[in-house]
Amino acid sequence: MTNHIRVNGERLWDSIMEMAKIGATAKGGSHRPTLSDEDKLARDLFASWCDDAGLSMTVDNMGDMFALRAGSSNDMAPVGMGSHLDTQPYGGKFDGVFGVLAGLEVIRTLNDRNITTVAPLEVVNWTNEEGARFAPAMLASGVYSGAFDLDWAQSRVAVDTGETVLEELKRIGYLGEQPIAAHEFSAFFECHIEQGPILDSGGIAVGVVNAAQGFRWYDISFEGFAQHTGSTPMAGRRNALLGMARVVQAVDDIAHEHAPLARGTVGSQVQVGPGSRNVIPGRVDFTVDLRHPSADTLAAMDSALRLVCQQVADEVILDLSLEQISYTAPVAFDERCVAAVKGACEQLGASHQYITSGAGHDACYVAERCPTAMLFAPCKDGISHHESESAEPEDLEAVCNALLHAVLDVAGPA
Amino acid sequence: MTNHIRVNGERLWDSIMEMAKIGATAKGGSHRPTLSDEDKLARDLFASWCDDAGLSMTVDNMGDMFALRAGSSNDMAPVGMGSHLDTQPYGGKFDGVFGVLAGLEVIRTLNDRNITTVAPLEVVNWTNEEGARFAPAMLASGVYSGAFDLDWAQSRVAVDTGETVLEELKRIGYLGEQPIAAHEFSAFFECHIEQGPILDSGGIAVGVVNAAQGFRWYDISFEGFAQHTGSTPMAGRRNALLGMARVVQAVDDIAHEHAPLARGTVGSQVQVGPGSRNVIPGRVDFTVDLRHPSADTLAAMDSALRLVCQQVADEVILDLSLEQISYTAPVAFDERCVAAVKGACEQLGASHQYITSGAGHDACYVAERCPTAMLFAPCKDGISHHESESAEPEDLEAVCNALLHAVLDVAGPA
Repeated sequence: MTNHIRVNGERLWDSIMEMAKIGATAKGGSHRPTLSDEDKLARDLFASWCDDAGLSMTVDNMGDMFALRAGSSNDMAPVGMGSHLDTQPYGGKFDGVFGVLAGLEVIRTLNDRNITTVAPLEVVNWTNEEGARFAPAMLASGVYSGAFDLDWAQSRVAVDTGETVLEELKRIGYLGEQPIAAHEFSAFFECHIEQGPILDSGGIAVGVVNAAQGFRWYDISFEGFAQHTGSTPMAGRRNALLGMARVVQAVDDIAHEHAPLARGTVGSQVQVGPGSRNVIPGRVDFTVDLRHPSADTLAAMDSALRLVCQQVADEVILDLSLEQISYTAPVAFDERCVAAVKGACEQLGASHQYITSGAGHDACYVAERCPTAMLFAPCKDGISHHESESAEPEDLEAVCNALLHAVLDVAGPA
Repeated sequence: MTNHIRVNGERLWDSIMEMAKIGATAKGGSHRPTLSDEDKLARDLFASWCDDAGLSMTVDNMGDMFALRAGSSNDMAPVGMGSHLDTQPYGGKFDGVFGVLAGLEVIRTLNDRNITTVAPLEVVNWTNEEGARFAPAMLASGVYSGAFDLDWAQSRVAVDTGETVLEELKRIGYLGEQPIAAHEFSAFFECHIEQGPILDSGGIAVGVVNAAQGFRWYDISFEGFAQHTGSTPMAGRRNALLGMARVVQAVDDIAHEHAPLARGTVGSQVQVGPGSRNVIPGRVDFTVDLRHPSADTLAAMDSALRLVCQQVADEVILDLSLEQISYTAPVAFDERCVAAVKGACEQLGASHQYITSGAGHDACYVAERCPTAMLFAPCKDGISHHESESAEPEDLEAVCNALLHAVLDVAGPA
């Protein structure tokens, strides 16, 4: 009976474009740092749409938003659909937003057709997926999974203003009372743009995400000695930036040594001090991001990184501080949920392929609590975390239709 | 007759310590930004000491202070001795101050002995040597040499308050009427702490500065592409930070290839964007500082830098912007003045060696107008531009004695 229903792709697109106006950048992107004024406006807009759709909203004590649509068996935990509304600094219009609004569009479509599912449905906006304003990323879903303590997560500090997550949740009015860990799902689906070039270059409509790379994040500092660039001989300098330069190259080398699946990057969050062109850099603070779908290979990359950092510290005579601030294990998504997505694609005649997520997503943490899968949409040239991030309306519509039918499969049409 | 006279080292030290009380910092340094209230107090104290020593003060239209002691042939231009009383923000007690007060101590010593030189003598305090509150450094001596226009120099703006040099000169009462360019010297000597480790580590009393390094300053940018660290394969990345890392190493290599006199540094003024740990660096802005006492070698270093930057841009597929923002030619100090300093050291039995100044000093500009040399004193571990800057009383006394006898040689004892 529900085989032939389709989402309203135009409505989905219009909602994404409307959301993109909040924090819109001159170059066509969105700038909505987590728990900023822009994030508050995005939350308010989402809440008003949920209200219009007849959903009941609860907010938990990490600011996560859960918009519930009753099913015919409300003793069942809801089937969740969602992602996040925060963005990278000067990021794109689709990363996260598509996943939240695809969930909303599924519900709007069911409303249009007066279809009630057996299990309730819920659209979710997770707090601080991006990790740019508050490290680490996927903070709230990480608390949900048990990876992070609630108190620790609430006390993370904003890199721009120095406020904590808790302070900012209160300030923007999104500190809810529901204990985050108490929430339950029957299953969870997250739609997302691929953020990589595989689907776009292959002309594939839907990525059936059956696994996600593990990754390790590090905070690293080198402390040397800030001296005059003119009067200090080369011999005996303790140039912290020279140390970082060697690590930047080494991290690139480590990733290439584990090609093609490994990734290794010194990120774009770098501080060099004291901040004068005629003073030798006395201190550098930087980050490293290592990824691989095999936990064993990722552990080998970790060992290589630690070794090279110590070698560089010894060579350049620097004090090294290296802290792994997060470890996200590789994820194998739930077979039943993955099969539901694949079955939906087959039913819809949509081209599709299995894909491993190179990025972390809220769904990777949620998968530790309930059966979970993801759906990827192609994005232009695989570009993401950038104002030029771009996706086609018909591609997003195709993935949203796959979500609709996967959810109907799992939640059960009444 | 004058061979055996010596300066009063205790008086010199006490004066330096007294001056250091103005803008004293909690960590033992001095904070006297150019033309600040503290700079005014330092000038007033210096003027009162000059008055006590029977000197006649004139102030020019850049606020430079000239305290004149008559000679026996007052148609001769004076022999100048001096440096500057302004400091770096939270800088040290000795940088600049030692050179001014060493000149004053020479005159106090001659007063004690009733010795009149043939040429008049003059103690000088140059305005804005540091360049921290008003860029560029050595502003007034640069106007004196003709490197900068007076109007341009007077219109430089304070980074803290936004006032111009002219406004601040008026505010603190040190805008004089004498045209700066009209001033003449028979010769000029500047004492200064080395600000490098060579004398301190070698146990050498006096640095006979016979040259100053030329230097070239560059602003360099690489523009690549900011993409997701997880989902972007290693192949095809355009990582701007990887480009900078290779240049940091190359600049170090270039300096080592022209050892021991060359210096090459990517300074501590670095911007990496867009500023997120899980975004590949899309843009880096950094500075390069190359120095050598030979203009030809410095030109070869310049060519090597430009070549490697272009090679790196090609390898990593980055857009390169490279601008040389300043060139300061190497200085060869006056043979006669250098010989006078060396002869004084020999006469005094003070250990000494020729040294090339790695930093810029007022004397480098003054050298374009009259015969000039410098004398360096050891400072602890070569540390300068820092509150922990430190020097020993007996080291400063030794250098001041060398100044006394070099000046007696050049100015002529009556």
